[in-house]
Amino acid sequence: MATLGSHEQKHKVTVVGGSAIAKIVAENTAAHPDIFLKDVQMWVFEEEYQIPKGSKHYDASSKFSTEKHKLTRLINHFHENLKYLPDISLPSNIIANPSLQESVKDATILIFNLPHQFIRGLCNQMKGSILPYARGISCIKGVEVSEEDISLFSESIGEKLGIYVGALSGANIANEVAQEKFCETTVAYDPPPMDSRNPTPKEGRTPQASQLDLTQITEHKDSKGLTSKVRLTAQPADLPLLDHELVHTLFHRPYFHVHVVSDVAGVSLGGALKNIVALAAGFVAGLDWGDNAKAAIMRVGLLEMRKFGKMFFENSVRTATFTEESAGVADLITSCSGGRNFRCAKMSVQRQMSIAEVEKEELNGQMLQGTSTAKEVYVFLKARGKEGEFPLFTSTYLILQGEAKVEDLPDLIAKPNLF
Amino acid sequence: MATLGSHEQKHKVTVVGGSAIAKIVAENTAAHPDIFLKDVQMWVFEEEYQIPKGSKHYDASSKFSTEKHKLTRLINHFHENLKYLPDISLPSNIIANPSLQESVKDATILIFNLPHQFIRGLCNQMKGSILPYARGISCIKGVEVSEEDISLFSESIGEKLGIYVGALSGANIANEVAQEKFCETTVAYDPPPMDSRNPTPKEGRTPQASQLDLTQITEHKDSKGLTSKVRLTAQPADLPLLDHELVHTLFHRPYFHVHVVSDVAGVSLGGALKNIVALAAGFVAGLDWGDNAKAAIMRVGLLEMRKFGKMFFENSVRTATFTEESAGVADLITSCSGGRNFRCAKMSVQRQMSIAEVEKEELNGQMLQGTSTAKEVYVFLKARGKEGEFPLFTSTYLILQGEAKVEDLPDLIAKPNLF
Repeated sequence: MATLGSHEQKHKVTVVGGSAIAKIVAENTAAHPDIFLKDVQMWVFEEEYQIPKGSKHYDASSKFSTEKHKLTRLINHFHENLKYLPDISLPSNIIANPSLQESVKDATILIFNLPHQFIRGLCNQMKGSILPYARGISCIKGVEVSEEDISLFSESIGEKLGIYVGALSGANIANEVAQEKFCETTVAYDPPPMDSRNPTPKEGRTPQASQLDLTQITEHKDSKGLTSKVRLTAQPADLPLLDHELVHTLFHRPYFHVHVVSDVAGVSLGGALKNIVALAAGFVAGLDWGDNAKAAIMRVGLLEMRKFGKMFFENSVRTATFTEESAGVADLITSCSGGRNFRCAKMSVQRQMSIAEVEKEELNGQMLQGTSTAKEVYVFLKARGKEGEFPLFTSTYLILQGEAKVEDLPDLIAKPNLF
Repeated sequence: MATLGSHEQKHKVTVVGGSAIAKIVAENTAAHPDIFLKDVQMWVFEEEYQIPKGSKHYDASSKFSTEKHKLTRLINHFHENLKYLPDISLPSNIIANPSLQESVKDATILIFNLPHQFIRGLCNQMKGSILPYARGISCIKGVEVSEEDISLFSESIGEKLGIYVGALSGANIANEVAQEKFCETTVAYDPPPMDSRNPTPKEGRTPQASQLDLTQITEHKDSKGLTSKVRLTAQPADLPLLDHELVHTLFHRPYFHVHVVSDVAGVSLGGALKNIVALAAGFVAGLDWGDNAKAAIMRVGLLEMRKFGKMFFENSVRTATFTEESAGVADLITSCSGGRNFRCAKMSVQRQMSIAEVEKEELNGQMLQGTSTAKEVYVFLKARGKEGEFPLFTSTYLILQGEAKVEDLPDLIAKPNLF
């Protein structure tokens, strides 16, 4: 349970995109008036929208129903996002706001839930309007990988805004969460040292050490263990302490179980790398090799995900994030059950088509996340001479390229060394 | 790779039941003549059998086909177990033998693959006929749980025969293994100290310590970390060292990937406890809550499996056995995909029938492994006042008993403590 007791200030929460996560958060701000201001601002990209005939809000006899309206007006009127999350009642303390600058003003906690291609533009617009001591949580799954580097969306946002940002990922999809179907998630939030006003004195430290004024520190480590370029401002002491407990209180619901960890890189990598494994599992399912073969591929894939994290984020990644968290093993299981990457890879084997052809037929040419991640990860590993150490990732890419056969997967993933 | 070089003696391998595992082992003894005698004795419960009309070996014009024969004779003639593993060619170096005493004679490695209810009787028959320094691997999945204790089948066999026995378990079923469909397994084998003729001197030990004659030791620890009742005889020094590497060589095939660990309790528990989780996953699937809810149940279940192991086998169980091995996470995934426990639990919710009714309709009244394990584990935990620490195991049992509702699972498994 979050710290009780009254605070002079309370946290103000703003959601940048994402009605499902706003619903959760608004339910929790209402339930914890000691910690949060009740109202949750939700920035919505403004558009004109007309109530569809299938909606329960449609009334043919009313002029209101037959004209277009601003989407934010409809949301605030009906407490429903008729366009993007129809038939789900939103709490009335969600305030849809078409102005990004206004919606983020005075927010102490910002939640980002938007397509990653919009990050740069929106951060530029937000920049001057946010509090210097705001903190964020990014719900954008995955990571950016290029030949040169891997970066976490959470850290890109943090750098652009000059704040600290954690990450939320797990075996859940917005629709099911909104319908309150039971699921779990992992939130990774590594509280910056200057926010810890009551540091627990560590054994062996001199008493002086714990009397350091942590709020004067501006540096914090990024997920690679390096000093972040971002210089942070401490959250004010009269705000409730933004720690794991508070993060839990903000996101946990009876139907949405939350586990809070500090490993932002592990949580973010899980959301990206699982898509490569889902392709491999789909290939094997396409050959009809049975559930055991598929489970073997998933197990090997899970360990490569962990190895990748440990190799490139050695100072922060923890094994348990992959093997025990919703953002790791559970998200992998879901993705290898009915996920898009799994299904399309399976089809490509069954129909003896290339993945590109399946993407064309099934996704109108839209690219699967797994295919681009497989390529990016391969290029990244190859540039470091490490592709041989990730035989499942590498084989999956080679199969996508038509340079390896699915039938050879067991041999390809057999390690040269014994164990 | 196993140690090369010639040895004065070679390992003689006998399989007590189980044509699929005998096939694997015989392929490997033939491939490694430096370590193993080529021929593998396979004990088969003798019975009279007539070649079925569908068999490729059936010849209506031949008298041989129209008469009954001893099953061992048919196996050795056709190199196929026509009754229990039809249409699978067995290596010609498998020698089916109806005499238990003869088949285990002089064997240095015994592989047990038989229904657990036969263990006691067969061990009594074998007792005087085995080598005192024989070692075993049990392929019998699961553990025995009662209110008083948990015991591993491998250790029960070891105690009855006066030898050390490890365990094999994983995401695999005999039929698929026999068809050479790709899968994996975990073999747990904790080499008894007297078998280690070349101990690696440990840092910090005095030089004298490593000069101890280990072959004179007769004691070894069991999976609970206690001194085993069994007094062992060291394997002779002119036999190839029976270590993880040799175990790997004996079981690993291109289509059957093997990982060798020392955690016998973890491997055995995985095979039993996964069935409880599969029931819970089936319940949730029956409610049509989606793949994410199911993955959440599996994740919570996996952690309870680990917790159970750590609590009751604290001196030997390792987390990774559950979270990283085929006998843990992979076997769980398979069991929660199409396994019997999963399917029947799902039906029971969909058809609003009790599990007992589903067992009657679908399994001719045969009991699911999960239902008996759930009960045994509940009784065992309850006797120790620990049932509340395993909310998923306990809820699953209560649902089976009609004392809890599947709909309440998310609340029931929510921990009283935060993390």
